[in-house]
Amino acid sequence: MSAAPLTVVIVGGVAGGMSAATRLRRLDESARIIVFERGPEVSYANCGLPYYVGGVIQDRDALLLQTPASLHRRFRLDVRVRHEVVRIDTDLRIVEVEGPDGQRVRQAYDRLVLATGARPRRDEPHAGVPVRSLRTVEDADAIHATLRPGLPVVVVGGGYTGLEAVENLVARGATVTLVQRGRQLLTPLDPEMAAPLAEELRAHGVDVRLGVEVTASAPGAVTLSDGSVVPAEFVVDASGVVPEVGLAQAAGLRLGETGGIAVDEACRTSAPDVFAVGDGVEKDDLVGGGPALVTMAGLANRHGRMVADLIAGREASARPAAGTGIVGVFGLAFAKTGWSERQLRAAGREYLAVHVHPGSHAGYYPGAETLSMKLLADPASDRILGAQVVGRDGVDKRIDVIATAMQAGVTATGLAELELAYAPQFGSAKDPVNLLGYVAENTRTGTTPTVQWHELDETVRSGAALIDVRSPAEHAAGAIPGATNLPLDELRDRLDELPPGPLVVHCQVGLRGHIATRLLRQHGRSVRNLDGGYRTWRDGTASAVA
Amino acid sequence: MSAAPLTVVIVGGVAGGMSAATRLRRLDESARIIVFERGPEVSYANCGLPYYVGGVIQDRDALLLQTPASLHRRFRLDVRVRHEVVRIDTDLRIVEVEGPDGQRVRQAYDRLVLATGARPRRDEPHAGVPVRSLRTVEDADAIHATLRPGLPVVVVGGGYTGLEAVENLVARGATVTLVQRGRQLLTPLDPEMAAPLAEELRAHGVDVRLGVEVTASAPGAVTLSDGSVVPAEFVVDASGVVPEVGLAQAAGLRLGETGGIAVDEACRTSAPDVFAVGDGVEKDDLVGGGPALVTMAGLANRHGRMVADLIAGREASARPAAGTGIVGVFGLAFAKTGWSERQLRAAGREYLAVHVHPGSHAGYYPGAETLSMKLLADPASDRILGAQVVGRDGVDKRIDVIATAMQAGVTATGLAELELAYAPQFGSAKDPVNLLGYVAENTRTGTTPTVQWHELDETVRSGAALIDVRSPAEHAAGAIPGATNLPLDELRDRLDELPPGPLVVHCQVGLRGHIATRLLRQHGRSVRNLDGGYRTWRDGTASAVA
Repeated sequence: MSAAPLTVVIVGGVAGGMSAATRLRRLDESARIIVFERGPEVSYANCGLPYYVGGVIQDRDALLLQTPASLHRRFRLDVRVRHEVVRIDTDLRIVEVEGPDGQRVRQAYDRLVLATGARPRRDEPHAGVPVRSLRTVEDADAIHATLRPGLPVVVVGGGYTGLEAVENLVARGATVTLVQRGRQLLTPLDPEMAAPLAEELRAHGVDVRLGVEVTASAPGAVTLSDGSVVPAEFVVDASGVVPEVGLAQAAGLRLGETGGIAVDEACRTSAPDVFAVGDGVEKDDLVGGGPALVTMAGLANRHGRMVADLIAGREASARPAAGTGIVGVFGLAFAKTGWSERQLRAAGREYLAVHVHPGSHAGYYPGAETLSMKLLADPASDRILGAQVVGRDGVDKRIDVIATAMQAGVTATGLAELELAYAPQFGSAKDPVNLLGYVAENTRTGTTPTVQWHELDETVRSGAALIDVRSPAEHAAGAIPGATNLPLDELRDRLDELPPGPLVVHCQVGLRGHIATRLLRQHGRSVRNLDGGYRTWRDGTASAVA
Repeated sequence: MSAAPLTVVIVGGVAGGMSAATRLRRLDESARIIVFERGPEVSYANCGLPYYVGGVIQDRDALLLQTPASLHRRFRLDVRVRHEVVRIDTDLRIVEVEGPDGQRVRQAYDRLVLATGARPRRDEPHAGVPVRSLRTVEDADAIHATLRPGLPVVVVGGGYTGLEAVENLVARGATVTLVQRGRQLLTPLDPEMAAPLAEELRAHGVDVRLGVEVTASAPGAVTLSDGSVVPAEFVVDASGVVPEVGLAQAAGLRLGETGGIAVDEACRTSAPDVFAVGDGVEKDDLVGGGPALVTMAGLANRHGRMVADLIAGREASARPAAGTGIVGVFGLAFAKTGWSERQLRAAGREYLAVHVHPGSHAGYYPGAETLSMKLLADPASDRILGAQVVGRDGVDKRIDVIATAMQAGVTATGLAELELAYAPQFGSAKDPVNLLGYVAENTRTGTTPTVQWHELDETVRSGAALIDVRSPAEHAAGAIPGATNLPLDELRDRLDELPPGPLVVHCQVGLRGHIATRLLRQHGRSVRNLDGGYRTWRDGTASAVA
């Protein structure tokens, strides 16, 4: 330890800032650690706020993980709430702080950590209707206090926070309209994967409005860009966030191309001894290699802790961000890691996509739920580029396994080899993750070439005949227009009934189609399997018209 | 494809054998594929048998995944049940098969796949009391038909199958005694991790007898090696299995040192064109590097599929076995991957052990359950050597993430960096797996040196003072004999009350002890933290007297 104690100033007292402060104290008993937080609370559970609003978390105190007093008792932190840092002078190494009384004081620092987070993107207020984001305890208190059964509420934005808000507003009996600018909810996922969401929300009474914005508001109602008027006594704004960089920018710190504070792999900003972590910071993107804004609590915590290690004289560096996320909505879970097909296509990247729909555990054990899983991989290197998992059971496990594999450099095909824990109530002898690997291998090696749901129209237009190898009963219950039904188990005996020329086969989820493809290719036919089967096609086409 | 179709003979029609047969058909439409199964069923769900006995799976047909007829329809397999291969001539490339009528026929092969599995280890019958293993549909039928409320049943063996049997016998109202030769149930786990099991079983009315064997039996009762007599109208033998190698041995195939059929990394035996997969085969051990018997359905399936690839002319090789397993008992799940501390110690390997007890998800969100997690790592290389997870929620997810990380070469410290999916109902911003990584790092780097629960007595005897840094209320509710209570938040002000000399500190689960260790070390004290806290110590010492 150095002779003269360090003075470390931390701006922002929630996830990243508080992780830095407490880890630093564990490493350095003598440092003077001052945390300035402009809000009235520190270290609160911001990911729990929607559930407090919804009554799932009944005890408000459960959200307040620490107080300035408890942090002083345990860690000798000097935590000052309602203190806003309004200026940084990186030459003089001082910050200027405005306290609750409006007085400004200066505080020198040896090391400065910026954990200023993000702020709502919303530009203009909705005149006449109260509007709240859902990012602070104050926000949650305000919404909690306003809610009553039947209260018409508009939620703007169908991302993670917007969806959690909707679920919890419905739980409190509000009449909820969800307004989403784009044609798809939950855009971190691809449309065919997000498709079950709108249906699920509507089944719970939510009025889902896609492709519109709020253009005007008056007491009791908002007007949407399609001219419709929606009753609204309250608006929850979840239209997204932007990095809170005003302070950094004014201090001359370099910003990145995404608008976040630019940092190196050790979270160092462009100014000496100034670190930045959390939602305000631009991260390295694992899949893309470039900079990205990834606003996840886990990264903020991890980077805060890492910065404490650096300040204490240890070596450390941050790994690129994988962008792993999950949201639960009415019992359905939607999870992703890495890039989506949309992102890959927009970037002009080559990719291979695989969809499977296995049970969440062995089918013979009661309670299995169907998972929808998508894997994206680099066709040349076999590297995993992204994955998405949707369902009612076992979603979080599968995305975490794939996220771990992706971060560790396991290939798409290599997922087949993972030895996972199996008992019939937990998984299958061939786990859904293994299955993704098998299908990726069959696709990549050309063992079973596939057609994606969004390529089917064009493939059929160019002359391929579509064969449904499911049972007649399955075909009758819902079929792709133009498909001819020829059940798999009769295929060998009815080969001469197949039309000449290229074929596309499909079944319900892809497995029987794979078997049919193998069979027909060995009989000399040019054939591809519809990836993910009828189910992926149905979800994909439903998303296109939702 | 070759001009002359291959004849492929497969011995054994359950997991490994049937995976080989169906994959091979998908790759080779022309091969003649003959499956000989000595039992009356093929491709049944053997991992589901206990749950059929218990009534969880009500429909017996659900266990029978395929029949010879369905396999012929879909895959043109020639499946012959009640056909036992009694001899192999690897020079002539023929097998001799005894059919249900007792007639023997010969069948030539180009490629032979042995998937003969394992058989119960049990040596002698228990005279006077019916005995059954629980490995076949016939076993399950026999037990199912015998059970009635109050029937006294003895289960021999407290491993995966024995525990599943116990749970399901209790579900059917039987009066169950579990007899385990050793002093610990579920020996794939270490004693402090398996400790909750005996307590849970007893809470469900199971008479758990440890350290004894059945020495004699008479109608209605068995006698144990401690002289006690236990009522028993039925015995379920789950005392373990040994590889079924008689056929291979008689054919002159090489066996390995573990007693299983020796194979190379492509599951080739010592005879040309003879492959072997499944529970009868010796595997490469990922952690130990040497041979091991790992009897898991997932490996059998995977290796069966791989052998089909090889027969079809593709290249493939098996990865070493990680030994990942899980069992659920009355809502508790016990899972492991890699080696246990017991194995490492027996092999004289250097290791570092870490115990944590985090919530299965964010504590502020209702329904979180405490997990007990243990990580074993190589102190020099930081390589993960094994892990164990126990609890009522989220156990399967955490073992699968760690198993994936271990197989992918992620280090113990590297677990801290994994970016996993977080929302409060699914995990924590610092996931339990991340926490294991953090504690491993603190332990490995000497940031916070630790004492294991089984080292505490010796450490105290050699002069260290034990300080309990929990609250007085926690201390009063249950303390380690000889510990002095000095709460963490008062420690800085009461440093002079500490005795001189080396210290061991502890809290409930290890976190506050870590903070206290850091604090005291910076005040110049020699101090170590009790790894896993009071909870691991309590479980460990309970296991020693159970």
